Amino acid sequence: MFVESIKSPGLAQLSYLIGDGSEAAVIDPRRDCEIYAQMARERGCRITHIFETHRNEDLISGAPILAELTGAAVHHGPNPAGEVTYADTVREGDEFSFGSMQLKVLETPGHTDDSLSFAIYDGDFGDQAIGVFTGDALFVGDVGRTDFYPDRSEEVAGLLYDSLQKILSLGDQAILYPAHGAGSVCGDNMADRDFSTLGYERANNPMLQIETREKFVARKVAEHHEQPPYFRHMEQLNLDGSAPAARVVTPQVLDADDVYRLLEKAEVLDVRGVSAYQGAHLPGSLAIPCDMIPAFAGWYLDATDEIILVADSAAQAESAARHLARIGFDRVLGFTNTALPGWAAGGRPFSNVPVVDVETVKTRVEGNKDGWQLLDVRGVKEVDGGIIPGAQCVYVGHLPDQLEKLSQNTHYTVMCASGARATIAASILRRSGFDNVDIFLGSMGAWKAGGHDVVARN
Amino acid sequence: MFVESIKSPGLAQLSYLIGDGSEAAVIDPRRDCEIYAQMARERGCRITHIFETHRNEDLISGAPILAELTGAAVHHGPNPAGEVTYADTVREGDEFSFGSMQLKVLETPGHTDDSLSFAIYDGDFGDQAIGVFTGDALFVGDVGRTDFYPDRSEEVAGLLYDSLQKILSLGDQAILYPAHGAGSVCGDNMADRDFSTLGYERANNPMLQIETREKFVARKVAEHHEQPPYFRHMEQLNLDGSAPAARVVTPQVLDADDVYRLLEKAEVLDVRGVSAYQGAHLPGSLAIPCDMIPAFAGWYLDATDEIILVADSAAQAESAARHLARIGFDRVLGFTNTALPGWAAGGRPFSNVPVVDVETVKTRVEGNKDGWQLLDVRGVKEVDGGIIPGAQCVYVGHLPDQLEKLSQNTHYTVMCASGARATIAASILRRSGFDNVDIFLGSMGAWKAGGHDVVARN
Amino acid sequence: MFVESIKSPGLAQLSYLIGDGSEAAVIDPRRDCEIYAQMARERGCRITHIFETHRNEDLISGAPILAELTGAAVHHGPNPAGEVTYADTVREGDEFSFGSMQLKVLETPGHTDDSLSFAIYDGDFGDQAIGVFTGDALFVGDVGRTDFYPDRSEEVAGLLYDSLQKILSLGDQAILYPAHGAGSVCGDNMADRDFSTLGYERANNPMLQIETREKFVARKVAEHHEQPPYFRHMEQLNLDGSAPAARVVTPQVLDADDVYRLLEKAEVLDVRGVSAYQGAHLPGSLAIPCDMIPAFAGWYLDATDEIILVADSAAQAESAARHLARIGFDRVLGFTNTALPGWAAGGRPFSNVPVVDVETVKTRVEGNKDGWQLLDVRGVKEVDGGIIPGAQCVYVGHLPDQLEKLSQNTHYTVMCASGARATIAASILRRSGFDNVDIFLGSMGAWKAGGHDVVARN
Amino acid sequence: MFVESIKSPGLAQLSYLIGDGSEAAVIDPRRDCEIYAQMARERGCRITHIFETHRNEDLISGAPILAELTGAAVHHGPNPAGEVTYADTVREGDEFSFGSMQLKVLETPGHTDDSLSFAIYDGDFGDQAIGVFTGDALFVGDVGRTDFYPDRSEEVAGLLYDSLQKILSLGDQAILYPAHGAGSVCGDNMADRDFSTLGYERANNPMLQIETREKFVARKVAEHHEQPPYFRHMEQLNLDGSAPAARVVTPQVLDADDVYRLLEKAEVLDVRGVSAYQGAHLPGSLAIPCDMIPAFAGWYLDATDEIILVADSAAQAESAARHLARIGFDRVLGFTNTALPGWAAGGRPFSNVPVVDVETVKTRVEGNKDGWQLLDVRGVKEVDGGIIPGAQCVYVGHLPDQLEKLSQNTHYTVMCASGARATIAASILRRSGFDNVDIFLGSMGAWKAGGHDVVARN
Repeated sequence: MFVESIKSPGLAQLSYLIGDGSEAAVIDPRRDCEIYAQMARERGCRITHIFETHRNEDLISGAPILAELTGAAVHHGPNPAGEVTYADTVREGDEFSFGSMQLKVLETPGHTDDSLSFAIYDGDFGDQAIGVFTGDALFVGDVGRTDFYPDRSEEVAGLLYDSLQKILSLGDQAILYPAHGAGSVCGDNMADRDFSTLGYERANNPMLQIETREKFVARKVAEHHEQPPYFRHMEQLNLDGSAPAARVVTPQVLDADDVYRLLEKAEVLDVRGVSAYQGAHLPGSLAIPCDMIPAFAGWYLDATDEIILVADSAAQAESAARHLARIGFDRVLGFTNTALPGWAAGGRPFSNVPVVDVETVKTRVEGNKDGWQLLDVRGVKEVDGGIIPGAQCVYVGHLPDQLEKLSQNTHYTVMCASGARATIAASILRRSGFDNVDIFLGSMGAWKAGGHDVVARN
Repeated sequence: MFVESIKSPGLAQLSYLIGDGSEAAVIDPRRDCEIYAQMARERGCRITHIFETHRNEDLISGAPILAELTGAAVHHGPNPAGEVTYADTVREGDEFSFGSMQLKVLETPGHTDDSLSFAIYDGDFGDQAIGVFTGDALFVGDVGRTDFYPDRSEEVAGLLYDSLQKILSLGDQAILYPAHGAGSVCGDNMADRDFSTLGYERANNPMLQIETREKFVARKVAEHHEQPPYFRHMEQLNLDGSAPAARVVTPQVLDADDVYRLLEKAEVLDVRGVSAYQGAHLPGSLAIPCDMIPAFAGWYLDATDEIILVADSAAQAESAARHLARIGFDRVLGFTNTALPGWAAGGRPFSNVPVVDVETVKTRVEGNKDGWQLLDVRGVKEVDGGIIPGAQCVYVGHLPDQLEKLSQNTHYTVMCASGARATIAASILRRSGFDNVDIFLGSMGAWKAGGHDVVARN
Repeated sequence: MFVESIKSPGLAQLSYLIGDGSEAAVIDPRRDCEIYAQMARERGCRITHIFETHRNEDLISGAPILAELTGAAVHHGPNPAGEVTYADTVREGDEFSFGSMQLKVLETPGHTDDSLSFAIYDGDFGDQAIGVFTGDALFVGDVGRTDFYPDRSEEVAGLLYDSLQKILSLGDQAILYPAHGAGSVCGDNMADRDFSTLGYERANNPMLQIETREKFVARKVAEHHEQPPYFRHMEQLNLDGSAPAARVVTPQVLDADDVYRLLEKAEVLDVRGVSAYQGAHLPGSLAIPCDMIPAFAGWYLDATDEIILVADSAAQAESAARHLARIGFDRVLGFTNTALPGWAAGGRPFSNVPVVDVETVKTRVEGNKDGWQLLDVRGVKEVDGGIIPGAQCVYVGHLPDQLEKLSQNTHYTVMCASGARATIAASILRRSGFDNVDIFLGSMGAWKAGGHDVVARN
Repeated sequence: MFVESIKSPGLAQLSYLIGDGSEAAVIDPRRDCEIYAQMARERGCRITHIFETHRNEDLISGAPILAELTGAAVHHGPNPAGEVTYADTVREGDEFSFGSMQLKVLETPGHTDDSLSFAIYDGDFGDQAIGVFTGDALFVGDVGRTDFYPDRSEEVAGLLYDSLQKILSLGDQAILYPAHGAGSVCGDNMADRDFSTLGYERANNPMLQIETREKFVARKVAEHHEQPPYFRHMEQLNLDGSAPAARVVTPQVLDADDVYRLLEKAEVLDVRGVSAYQGAHLPGSLAIPCDMIPAFAGWYLDATDEIILVADSAAQAESAARHLARIGFDRVLGFTNTALPGWAAGGRPFSNVPVVDVETVKTRVEGNKDGWQLLDVRGVKEVDGGIIPGAQCVYVGHLPDQLEKLSQNTHYTVMCASGARATIAASILRRSGFDNVDIFLGSMGAWKAGGHDVVARN
C-alpha cells in the first residue's frame, strides 16, 4: 500500500499516486500526466481510477488525458456550474477500492461547490482513516480561499467551515494530503512543510483555532486574494477537457536572425534570472524568471499569444515551456540560447535596467528627488504592513491595467520585497515605453535591514 | 558540424542526426522519433529536413511522425511502386544545406528502386565528400540484398553494382554511414563494427573485390535471404505513413488473474531469457527473448494480434514493447511481472522444456533412438555448412508453416547453433501440441567443440 | 521544511533526509551514501548532522562515510557494548536544530541498548511533535525484535515496552518514521505500508493493544526470529566504521573462459530469476535471485568469499553488487552476461533442476514414493501453521548446517510457500552433491489452492 | 568492435573507449574517469589497457586513477623529461590486442617528446589501419602546437613534420581520432567538426598543404600561442599521478551569511552568464561563465585558492566544479544559490557593471573622450587583424600581470570580439580597484556590423 506525492514546482500543486498490489489511483493529475502511468507501471500496477478533488482554476487538469492513456474512469464531485464532460459524478459515501486500500468520498464544498475530500483506509487494519486527501479545503497551516463566488461569500465560507468539521471528525490519527503545499499561492499562510496530520492541524492550524462558525466566516470574508485573468480560461478548459501537452516539451531552437524577424509578432519572454535581465536583454522583452512563471505568467500573457523564450539553456527552456503548458500557454515558437554578446555582436539592439541600492534610494527619498517616484509593486497584505515614505503602490499583477496612473516622464525606481517582482514590473514599464526605470535591489528587505523608517500606507 | 548516429538495438538500424550551427537534418528516423527532436534541441539546433535512403521493409519509418513534430519536410527517392504520401521526391544532384554542411543526393538503386545515398561536404574546407550515407546499398563489410524483386533479380543486382561504383567514386577519404550496422540481419557478412571509410571498403569489403559486373550479379542472384511475412505490412505502412507509437511505452501491468482470463484471446509472448522459458513458463506461450524480438517476432505474430508479455521487469517489458512498436505490433494488452512461483502458487498450470547436453544427443544419434528425431532449425546457409547425422532441417521462421512435416508422436530434440533459436522453435512446437520436446543446449557449437562428425545435408 | 525517505529495496531499510532552509540532517544513512549529499545539494542545503537510531546488525552504516564526505558529525546513543568509534554520544533530551526544524533525542532501548528515537518539531508552529523517527523500536503494524540479548530477554522486552510508552506520549498527531518498512524481515507483522501516525498505531498496531507490560514481555520472549551469521560481522563493522563502497558498483565483465577458469576458487552466485536457474545454470552455482540477496545472501556467503555473478544484464549485476555491498560482501570478481546457450556452445558443462506441479507431488505423497522425500524449507512460524503430510522441515537458512540430516541417495522435492526459497535450497543441495532434486513450483500455495490436506508438524 | 568518443566540454578534449568482444581499452582518460568503467561494463566488456598519447599540460590525466579502479596497466611514450610514475613505457611498433582489434604504437614526437599515435586494425579484415589516434599531433583541420620547448623550437617543429608523414603513410582510408576537437584552444584553426579521415586531411588540412619541411618549420616557429600559468601544475601532476576527484562533485550549499563570512579568505567565482554578472554581482567576484572555466580559470586561480561559486543552480555549480576539478582546482568551499535579490534584501552590498552599445562607443571614440580609454582584451592574432582606433590592447589572460599599464583614474570601456571575455576582464578590473568600468556589448562584432573603421595596431 503506497501514497506517492508528485509536486509540480512553482504551482506547488500536489497530486498523488496511491494504490496497493497491482491497482492504483491518481488524485488530481496535472496536464503532463505520462508520469503517473510511468510510475504506476514501474511499481507493478495499473491505474484503475482517477479522482479530482475539485475543478481547478489555476492549472489544467490532466484527468481527461490520463483517462485516455490508461482507460481509467474519472470521478468528480457534483458541479452546479455545469457538467465536467470527461468525468462521472460521485457523492458523499461512495466507496472505491484498490487492492486492500479503500477510499471513501466526502463532499466538502466551500472552496468550490464541487470540492470533495477522499479518506483512505487500510483494509488489513482497523476502521479508522489512515489519511485524507483534502484538495483545497484544508492545507498545512491554512485553509482554502473562498473568494470565487463573490455574491455568495458568506455562504461558501460557512460551507467550508462545515466541511472542515467533517474532515476533522476523521480523527487526529489521519495523515493530511492537500492539493497544494509549501510555496503555493493558493493559501497565504501555508506552513513551509508538506506533511501534517489532522491532529496536528486541529491543534496548530490558526484557521482551526477560531472559536465559532461566525468568526470563521467573518475572517474569510475579510480576506483579500488576487485572481489572475487566466483563471477564467482554466475553468473553461477544466469543464471541457484539455488536449495533451506536446510530445517533446523542449522548444525548438531559434537563432538570432529568426528571433529578430519574429520580434514583431511574438511576445519575448525572458526566463533567465533577474540579474541577467538587468544586465542585458532583448528590447521589449517581458522578464519572468523561470520559476516565477506559474505565479506570474497568467497575469500578462494570453492563451493565443505566440511566445519566444530567452533562456540560458535548453534545460531552462524546457522547464519554462512545461510551466507554461501546465497553465495553458502552448504557442511557444521556440527559444533562443543566443547569449546577449552574440546577439549584440550581430549589430542587434539590446537594453538594460540599472539596479540601485538602499543608500541611493534613501538619498532620493530624503531629497524628495524631483521627477522621481518610488513604485512599490507588492501585494495588498504586504503594503498594509507599511511602506517606504512617499512610495506609490500598484500590485505587479495589475500594472498593465493601471499604467495610466503613471507618467512616462517620471523616473521610476521599482521595488518589492527583495527585487524579484520589481524586475518583472520594470520589464512591464520598459516595454510600455517608460525609459527611465531602475530597480531597487534588496527593496523592503534592505530598507528594513538598514533600520530605516516605514510608514503606513495612505 | 556534427554527425550523430542513433542505433536501434536488435534491428541494428542506424539513423543519423546531422547538422551545423542551429540547423539539423535526420536521416532514416525510426518510429519512436521524439529522440531526434530532443537531441537536436539539446544541441541547440532545430530539425529542418528529414531524408530517407529508401522505403524500409523491416521497420516503420518515423519520417511522417517526425515531420509532424517538427514541421520539417520529408525527402524520399523516386518510387515506381507508388507515391510515398508523406514525402516529396528528390533526385540525383539535388542539394541541401544546414549551416555550412552541404548534402548532395545520389540515386543508388538496387536494394530498392527508390534507394538514395547522401554525400556530405564541409563548406569551410575543400570540395571532397567528407562522408556518405549509403542506406542499404553499402554496408561495412557487405552490400545490400537484392532479392525484393524476384522477377528482376539480375537487373537490380546490376543496378546495385552501378550504384556502388557511383558511391566509391566519391573518394577513399569519405566516411561510410550505412543504414544498418553490426548485428543486423540485412547483410549476412557485415563486419562487427559500425565505422569505416570508402577507402577501407574499396580495399577490404569482399563484395567490392569481385572483378566484374557479371560476376557480381551472379553472386547476388545466388544469395539466399529470408523474408519474414511482416515485411509486406511494413512496406504498406511506409507508403501510407504510420501513426506515432504510444506516449507511454511501458505496457500496463496485468496480475495473474487478468492474464489467466485473457489467455484464450491473446498471444502470450515470453520475452525473458531462454533459460527462464526452459525452467518454467505459461502454457501455450511463444518464447522470444527480448533482444530477439526484432529479428523473429515478425515471423509469428500478426499486426492484429493482442499480446500479453511475460517479462522479468517493467524495464524489460518496456524494451519488448518498444521493439514490437518499431515493427508494427501495437496491441500489447499488458505485461505480467508475476514470477512463475507466484503464478503456480495460485494453483495455475505451468510448463517447462528440458535441456539436454551434447553427450545425451550423441548417445541418441548413435543409438538411432526410436521415435526420436533431431530437428535443426538453422538457416539455409548454416545447414549448407553441414549438419549432425540424421538431423531434419526446418528453418525456425518457417516452422509454423511446415508443422505438417512433423509428427506429434515423435520425440523432438531441437537444435540451432547454440540453443537460442531452438528455444523459440521448441515453444512453437509446444504450443502446437507437441508434448515431447527438449532443447539441445550448446547445439552445433557444443557438437563441434566435442569433436563430433558433421555431415552434408541431403 | 522537509522529510524525505530513501528506501533500500530488499532490506526495506528506511533512511531519511530532513531539514529546513539551507540545513539538513540524515538519519540512518546506508553505506552507499553519496545519494544523501547529492539530494541535499540539489535541494539547496548542506548536511550538518548525521543521526543513528541504533547500531545496525543487518546492514553497514554509512554514517562514518557520509561524515567524511560532508564534514558533519555523527550522533549515536549510549552503547554499553563498546564505543562507536566514529560518533559522539547523545542522550535523552539533547536538542538540535536545522533551520526552523527542531529535533529532540529520546532514549528508547529494547531492540538494542543504544536505541534512540528522534522527535521533530516545527518551530514556526506549536510545541507538539510533528513526527518521530523510531528506528527499530516501533514499526507500522509491529514493534522491534528483542532477541539480540538472549540472556536478558525479559529485561530488554520490558525496556522496549517502556520505550513504546515514551514514544506514544508524543501524541496521536505525530507522524511515524520507522527504520524499516513494508517488505522488511525485521518485523514479521509489519503492515504493507510505509506511512502511519502514532495515533493510528496506538489504536491499530496489534502489539500496542496488549493490556499489560507483563503480557507484552511474555509475548516478545516467545517470539522466534532467525539471525543470519553475517549479523556478527555487521555489528563489528558498525562499531569500527566501514570503508566506502566501490566508486563504480557495476562489476567487471568476465567472459566464459574467465569464469570457467575461476570456478575453482570463487563462489558462483546466480542472481537471475528462479525460472532461469531451473532451466539451465552453471554447475555448482548458488541461486539467489537479485531481489532476495539482502535477505538470504548473508546465510551462505562469507565476507572473504570471492564471488562471480551470473546475471541477465549489467543492470542486474549492478543491483546485485549494490545489494551485496550494503551487507558487506565486496569481493565481487565480476559478472558474466554469457547466456547459457553461449556457455554451452563452447562445450562447457551446465545443469538444470526440473520443476514439478501439485499433481505430481500429490501422487508421490499418496504413493509413499520409495526413496523420495518432500523437503519443506519454510521458517518456523510457517511450518507451525501446518505442513504437507510426510514433509521433512529444515529452514532454508539452516540448510548448509544441517545437510547431515539428509541423504544423498534420496530423491528430494523441495518446497516452500511458492517455490522461490525452494529454488535457493535446491541450489544448496545440488552444489553439495545431491543429484536427485526437483522443485515443487507453486508449493504450499498450490497445494492449498488444490484443496489438499495440511497436517500439524510433529 | 567499437570506438566511442567521450568529449569533455570546454576543454574539447576527446578521450576514447575502444574494444571488441569482452575487452576494451581507454585512450587519454580524463580525471573523472568512472565514466569509462561504467560504459565498458554496460557494453559487456572490461578495460584491459589504458593508453596515453602524451603527457597533458592542459588537464589532469585520469590514467593512474582509472588504473586503480580497473586493474589495467597504463602505457605511455618515452619521456625524456622524467619518468611518468604510474605508467610503463611503450615504443614504436609495440602491439596490443583486444578481441579482434589490434593496436600498434607509432612514436610521433613534436608536440611533446613523448607523443605517441596508435593505429588500429580489424583482425577479421585486411591489413590496413582502419583508424588512428593522433593525440595532439594531428587535428581535424590543424596540427599540434610546438611551443613547449622554446629553445628547441625548430627541432620540435621538424619532429612534428616527420611524425605527420609517418601518420599519413597509414593511408587515406584511416579514420582520424585526435585528442582535441571542435572548440579546443589547442589548435587555432581546427575545423568545427570532430570527424575526418587521413585522406580528407591530406587533401584539405592547410598545414598538410605546405610544400616542404623547411616551410612547415618556419610556419610553426612563427606561430603564437598563450600558455596559462596552470600548465606547469598540470605537467607536474601528470608525472606524479593525481588523486581522484571528489565522490560527490556538486559543491555544498552556502547560505548568504556563510558567504559573507568567507568573503575575506576565499575567491568568489561567479559562473553565471555574463549578463547576470553585468546586472548584479557580489563585490570582488571574478566572473567566468561556467563554460569558459576550462579556458580561463587557469589564468587567474591558483591550485591552493579556496573558491566560493556563485551559480544559478546546483546543476550549474556541479558543472563548474567538474570543470575546475579537471584542471586541478579542488578547493571549492561551496556554492551559493542565493539570488542577488535575496543577498541584497539582507542588507548586503552588491555591485554591477553597465553595458554600452556601439553607438555610445563610437561617440566616445570620435569625441576623444577625456579620461576615457577603450581596452581591447583579445588575443594577439585577433588584434593583429585590426583594432578600433585608439584602443589599448592587453590580452585578457595577461591582465592581472599588466595592471600597472592601466590607471585607476581612467574610465575604461572593455571590449573583445563580442563581450564575453570583456566581462571577465571587467571583473578583473573591478576587483582590482578600478571603479569606472563598462563593457562594450557586441564589441568588434557590432563595430564591424555597423560598418565602422578598423585600423592596424601600432
